[in-house]
Amino acid sequence: MKQFIIIGHKAVTAPFSLNDLPGAAGRMDILCRCINAALFLSHDLRRDVRVYLVLKGEPDPPKLIRFDGNEVRYLSPDERSAASLIKKALEKNAQDFWTESMPGVSIRRGNFSNLLRELNKKIIYLREDGEDIRGKRFEEPLFVLGDHLGLTDEEEKLIEGCEHKIVSVGPLSLHADHCIVILHNEMDRKEKASLHSINHIIL
Amino acid sequence: MKQFIIIGHKAVTAPFSLNDLPGAAGRMDILCRCINAALFLSHDLRRDVRVYLVLKGEPDPPKLIRFDGNEVRYLSPDERSAASLIKKALEKNAQDFWTESMPGVSIRRGNFSNLLRELNKKIIYLREDGEDIRGKRFEEPLFVLGDHLGLTDEEEKLIEGCEHKIVSVGPLSLHADHCIVILHNEMDRKEKASLHSINHIIL
Repeated sequence: MKQFIIIGHKAVTAPFSLNDLPGAAGRMDILCRCINAALFLSHDLRRDVRVYLVLKGEPDPPKLIRFDGNEVRYLSPDERSAASLIKKALEKNAQDFWTESMPGVSIRRGNFSNLLRELNKKIIYLREDGEDIRGKRFEEPLFVLGDHLGLTDEEEKLIEGCEHKIVSVGPLSLHADHCIVILHNEMDRKEKASLHSINHIIL
Repeated sequence: MKQFIIIGHKAVTAPFSLNDLPGAAGRMDILCRCINAALFLSHDLRRDVRVYLVLKGEPDPPKLIRFDGNEVRYLSPDERSAASLIKKALEKNAQDFWTESMPGVSIRRGNFSNLLRELNKKIIYLREDGEDIRGKRFEEPLFVLGDHLGLTDEEEKLIEGCEHKIVSVGPLSLHADHCIVILHNEMDRKEKASLHSINHIIL
């Protein structure tokens, strides 16, 4: 299982118009593209991936939304499709526990700290000054990425309070969804290499 | 200069509604995500990139649209923003030569063959069975990628008639925009390594 947390500092916490994701919905477009990057293969979904969105915008923060690649349906690669599922989740009366709003999409009331405690795993935090991911192997990783605002000092402190590693995907500063694509590529390559070496041993 | 051609086999060739990019606009969402992947850095644009879209859908095919990273303005990372610039280009009466519809966005009447002849460069064609890009160096590359339908036999024959190389970005079959992100990452790394070795020589 590969897990991604993306923090949307302005992402709204009530149903929104699908026609203005960057503006009125508080850069919800960023979170939608991260869902696409984390879950889609060509003509298939990555079943071993979960994506968590931390929504911190008005009017009712904080809320958490989860997309489970193994369960999700009715999701197409376009931003509007992911946005429509997020919107449906926000129509639910969020509780302190996960409630499924559509197959594979769930919502709960909670913040980044609650989520880290719930998942209780070593964190791989994406930041420009981190160690290069190339050649690294990630076992059941939990990645944390910021939106256009990065992470706040408070959020970084939460990460520092957990077992964590800071990594970078390359020499330039990229959007969160682009980072996810590059992370997947590195893991895909490692998995193929492992399979290859297992086959080699069996032969 | 890095150039990308993406072929939209169903992408419409007249102004369309921004509210249904995957359906009525003929998977225009794919082309919009490719523009994002090719042109955006975090808080910046890749100025050394040009993206060409080949629109082959009804009602008035074929048309070519060009986004020039060095000139483009009014482009945000969301799909709807790129779509809005494509729509504005399609409102122009396309000629057999490039006409600018907005800063950095131009349109002309023409097909894939016309475009290849105009650019007159070695083609790097992305296909799952190609040689791995990792470790390769691309000088002033011209990449060709298909949409959800891949390339037709006729389009592949056009490529075979030119100097070309077939490459792949990894072990799994990915969306065109994800391939572009991985291509850029490989080139970014190579450019950084070159800069580093130049600095080393100067020191």
